[in-house]
Amino acid sequence: MEIRSKIWLEIDGETVFGSGRRALLEAIVIYGSINKAAQQINISYRKALSYIQSMEERLGMPLVNRKTGGKNGGGAVLTKDAEVFLKKYRLLEDGINETIDKKYSDIFGLENKSGKGV
Amino acid sequence: MEIRSKIWLEIDGETVFGSGRRALLEAIVIYGSINKAAQQINISYRKALSYIQSMEERLGMPLVNRKTGGKNGGGAVLTKDAEVFLKKYRLLEDGINETIDKKYSDIFGLENKSGKGV
Repeated sequence: MEIRSKIWLEIDGETVFGSGRRALLEAIVIYGSINKAAQQINISYRKALSYIQSMEERLGMPLVNRKTGGKNGGGAVLTKDAEVFLKKYRLLEDGINETIDKKYSDIFGLENKSGKGV
Repeated sequence: MEIRSKIWLEIDGETVFGSGRRALLEAIVIYGSINKAAQQINISYRKALSYIQSMEERLGMPLVNRKTGGKNGGGAVLTKDAEVFLKKYRLLEDGINETIDKKYSDIFGLENKSGKGV
């Protein structure tokens, strides 16, 4: 038996950030392009733009600076605000995952990792 | 902005327990009947039975003792094993929720609880 978890951030009941949007921003850092980042995480370019736009609107700050595009939609870099936000979210998500694993193993015991039984 | 989370337990990639199944077992404790418990959490009696059966199979232990039924499907009580399991899961889920809220407020700061901003 193993524990699984999912966290996300909401504003007024709407998702504003979670593991998918984290992956998108991280891929933009790596590939320097919204188009390549979208391909990498298996979403369309249009979907990526829509994620970015809704995140920027809901968080009230610019997240991605787009350079003048070529056929691949041009280059893109995260804003300083986006970097700070992403760093905080990583700290949150990774810290929570660690705590969850520890609590699970404290309460249910290591003997359950293999499969059945309480 | 606020944090949301969800945890669940899996065995071999299949969900074996989570907040819905927790609610079902807790409702059985309160109402003493699978049928009433199912109504209370807005699932069908058939669905409740299917949840119980799959949990019992995957966890490898009986969870619910059914008394001889009447028109409402008879009474039902949790087994001792189910009580122990439920207690552990509550401890896990409630403890995790508390930790998540604390980590969120440590990292993102209390000033964000009201809405927008990093």
